[in-house]
Amino acid sequence: MRVSAGVTDGIRVVVIGAGFSGLAAALALARAGAQVRVLEARDRVGGRVLTRWLPDGTQLDLGAQWIGPTQDRMYALVAEHGLATFASATLGAPTLLWAGRRRAEPPAQAGRVLGLLDEYAARLDPAAPWQAPEAAQWDRTILGDWLRATAGDGDTTDYLGRLLAGGLLATGADEVSLLQLLFYLRSAGGTEPLLRMAGGAQQDRIVGGPSTLAERMADALPPGALTLAAPVRSIEQTIDGATAWTDTGRVDGDAVVVALAPALAGRIRYDPPLPALRDGLTQRMPMGSALKVHAVYPEPFWRADGLSGVSTSSSGPLTETVDNSTPTSPLGVLTGFSYSVDAAALREMSPEQRRRCLLDAFAGVVGSRARDPVDLVEYDWSADEWTRGCFCGALTPGTWRTYGPRLRAPVGRLHWAGTETATRWAGYLEGAVRAGERAAAEVLAG
Amino acid sequence: MRVSAGVTDGIRVVVIGAGFSGLAAALALARAGAQVRVLEARDRVGGRVLTRWLPDGTQLDLGAQWIGPTQDRMYALVAEHGLATFASATLGAPTLLWAGRRRAEPPAQAGRVLGLLDEYAARLDPAAPWQAPEAAQWDRTILGDWLRATAGDGDTTDYLGRLLAGGLLATGADEVSLLQLLFYLRSAGGTEPLLRMAGGAQQDRIVGGPSTLAERMADALPPGALTLAAPVRSIEQTIDGATAWTDTGRVDGDAVVVALAPALAGRIRYDPPLPALRDGLTQRMPMGSALKVHAVYPEPFWRADGLSGVSTSSSGPLTETVDNSTPTSPLGVLTGFSYSVDAAALREMSPEQRRRCLLDAFAGVVGSRARDPVDLVEYDWSADEWTRGCFCGALTPGTWRTYGPRLRAPVGRLHWAGTETATRWAGYLEGAVRAGERAAAEVLAG
Repeated sequence: MRVSAGVTDGIRVVVIGAGFSGLAAALALARAGAQVRVLEARDRVGGRVLTRWLPDGTQLDLGAQWIGPTQDRMYALVAEHGLATFASATLGAPTLLWAGRRRAEPPAQAGRVLGLLDEYAARLDPAAPWQAPEAAQWDRTILGDWLRATAGDGDTTDYLGRLLAGGLLATGADEVSLLQLLFYLRSAGGTEPLLRMAGGAQQDRIVGGPSTLAERMADALPPGALTLAAPVRSIEQTIDGATAWTDTGRVDGDAVVVALAPALAGRIRYDPPLPALRDGLTQRMPMGSALKVHAVYPEPFWRADGLSGVSTSSSGPLTETVDNSTPTSPLGVLTGFSYSVDAAALREMSPEQRRRCLLDAFAGVVGSRARDPVDLVEYDWSADEWTRGCFCGALTPGTWRTYGPRLRAPVGRLHWAGTETATRWAGYLEGAVRAGERAAAEVLAG
Repeated sequence: MRVSAGVTDGIRVVVIGAGFSGLAAALALARAGAQVRVLEARDRVGGRVLTRWLPDGTQLDLGAQWIGPTQDRMYALVAEHGLATFASATLGAPTLLWAGRRRAEPPAQAGRVLGLLDEYAARLDPAAPWQAPEAAQWDRTILGDWLRATAGDGDTTDYLGRLLAGGLLATGADEVSLLQLLFYLRSAGGTEPLLRMAGGAQQDRIVGGPSTLAERMADALPPGALTLAAPVRSIEQTIDGATAWTDTGRVDGDAVVVALAPALAGRIRYDPPLPALRDGLTQRMPMGSALKVHAVYPEPFWRADGLSGVSTSSSGPLTETVDNSTPTSPLGVLTGFSYSVDAAALREMSPEQRRRCLLDAFAGVVGSRARDPVDLVEYDWSADEWTRGCFCGALTPGTWRTYGPRLRAPVGRLHWAGTETATRWAGYLEGAVRAGERAAAEVLAG
C-alpha cells in the first residue's frame, strides 16, 4: 500500500465476511491506517475453510485445504502467522477407475484435449475473458458438448467432464460453459498446476489447518475490529457514507468491502437497490455443488498394498479420492469428493444408504477394508446457509459478456471481494486473499 | 376446495407476496375457512404488474398486461371482480424487420422450426419435463446453438432466437437451454397460443389494467389480512408452527405460502436453512432481463399509414413493438421490448443516448414521427428490488434434472407458489393464479 498514513487515517471501512478474502482486505486496510470493522455472520472466521479435530487430535480439513506453487500470498501468510505447511500424502501412483475398472492411465486423447484447453485458455485476459475473439462462441458452448465433440463420446468425455467441471468447479460438465472453464484454467495458469498434487494446487497443507491460519489473521486485526455472529442484513449508501445493518445494530463507514461470493452478496438488501446488471450477476453465478467425505481408519492400510489412496473415476458417486492422512497421526484418512448430479443423488439418500454407497466407492479404490471405517465425516457446504456451495461460484452459460464486467466494478461506496472476483487463482484460497487485497487497494485509492 | 369449513377453520396461513399468485392463494385459503395473513414488501399489491395513468387518464401497463384464450382463471377473476377486457389493438398487418429491412413474412424455414419445437414440446410432461427421454440432451443444448444447427446460421436464427428466448422468456438464445423453452411452450400449449395476439396470449387487456384487478382481489380478502410495506426477512419453522419475521414484528401460522419467484425466495433467510437442493434451485433460476418502453404520441399516427405498430425485428435494440393504445384514449401508445444483451446495452447508455436509441428504433417501425413523442415511459423490472427481472425465472442450462424437482416440493410447512411453479401458463398471470391456488390446495390438504 503506497498510501501514506495521513491520507487514510480517517477512512472507516466495513468489511462484510471474515473468510480469507475479508480477512486479507481488513488486514491490508488496517495496515494502511484505515479504521476497519469486520462483520461475520458465523461464530467463527474462515468462511469456506473449516478444520476439525478427531478425538485423538488428527486434523480434518472439511473445506478448502490445499496450497501450491505460485500461490505466493498464501505461503507468505502461512509464514507471517508462524505456521508451517506439510506435503499432501502422495505415496504411490494414483488410481484411475475407468468405467469402474482400473486402468494404468487415461488415453492419449485425454491429454490432447487438456492441451487444447490450455491453448485456448492462454488466449484469454483473466481480467476480461469476455473480450477474447472466440469468447461469445465459447460462452454459449456447454463444456460437456464440447468434450463430446472433441474427446469423442463415451468414457473419455465422462472422465474429462468429471475431472474438469467436477474436480475444478464442483459442477457438472452439462451445466457450465467452455468459457467459464477456460477462465478458471487461465486464472490458475493451466491444467497442469490445477490438476497436480506435488507441483500443483494440491501440493501442500497447513499444519493446524487453514482455520488456524484464519484465526491468526483475525488475531492480527486491531482490537475490537471483528464482530462474529453478526449477519449483515442490509447495506445503505448515502452521499456521506455507508452503513451496514445487522440484527442488533449499525456499523458506519466511508466504504464497504463485500467479501462474499456473488450468490450470497445478492441476498443482502441494498439501499439504494443495486443496479440491474450487478444484481443480475448475483442471480447468474451459482455456487458449485460438492460433498466432501472423510473416511477415517486405524491406519492408512492402502499404503501397504502399494496404493496411494489418490484416485479419479470416470463414473460413480465419487469423482476423486485423496489420502488425507497427516504425518503426525497414525490414523488413515481417505477423503472423497462428489459433485453435481452425483452429490444430489447422495443428498437424496437416507443416511444409511449414503454411508453404504460412499463406503462401496471407497472400497472400489482401496479394497474392502474401506467398508469398516472408525469414523465417516461429511460436510455439505451447499446446506450451510453462510456458504451455500463450494468450491466457488461460476457464471452460467452465455452470461459472461453481459454480467462478467460487473464482477469487480464498484457500486458507489461498495467494493467487491471474494475469490470469485480474483484474476489469479480464482476459486482458491490464494484468489480469496488476492481479491481481498485488491479490494482494499481500491478503497485506499479512493 | 373440498375441505369442509370445520377441518380448516383453525388453519392459519401466512402468504408471502401479494402478486397474483399470493393473492390467489390467499383468496382460496380464506374461502376455505383458513385464517390468512398476506405480507407484501411493497406499498402496493400486484407484483409484476403495474398500471399507471397518464395525466389524461390513459392507461399504461408497465408490467404484465395481456390475457388470452385458455387462460380461464384470469378471465374468471376479471368477471368475478366486476372488470372487463378489451381487445389489444391489432389494426393492420404486423411489421417484420429482417436485418433492418421490411419483409413480408419470415422464410418458410422459420415456420418449420416452430413446428419442430411444438412437436418436441408435446413430448414433455409439464409437471416433470426432466423425465422426457430426450430431456438430458435438450437441457444441455443451448437454444441458440440448436437454432443455428436447425434454422441455419444468420438472420433466421437471430429472428427465432429473439422471438423465442427474448419474446417469451426475456432472455438471450445463448443463455437458455432448449429444454427450458420446450417446457415453456408445453405449459402454454405451443408456439401458436404464445405468439399470437388475437387468438393467443396477447389477445386481451384489462380495463383499468391488471393493477386494478389485483387491488380488487386484495379488497376481497378478509379485513386486516393484508399488510403492505412489510418485507419478510426470515421464516422460521418449528414442529409447532411457522413464523414470518418482518422488520417490525412476527406473524405466526401453521403453514407458509411463499408466492415469490425462486430467485427472490432465495433471498429470505430460513430457519432451519433450506435443504441444499432447494437453495440450489434459487441460485439457478435467474429472472429474465427486459426493458419495456412506452412512447406516447398525440394519436396513433401509424394507423393512417396502414401500419399496425406491431413489429418483430431480427436485430436492433427492440425485439418487438406493439400498439398499446387504448380504445378510450385519443393518444397513441407504442410499446417496445428489449431483452438480454440489448437491454443491458440500453441500461449502460446515458438517459439521452438511450432515448435517442429507442426513438430511432420506434422510427424504424412506424416512421420518423416516432422521434417526437409527448412522453417516453420506461420501467426496468430488473432494477426493482422486489421483482429483479421479468417476465419470469428460467432454469439455467443443464440444471432441470437436479433442481427442477425442487420447484414445487414443499419443505416442511413451506409451500411454493409464483408463476414459475405453474404447470399451465408458467410465466404468465394465469400461471401465477394457478400456482397460488395449487399451493393453497396443498396447504388445505394438510
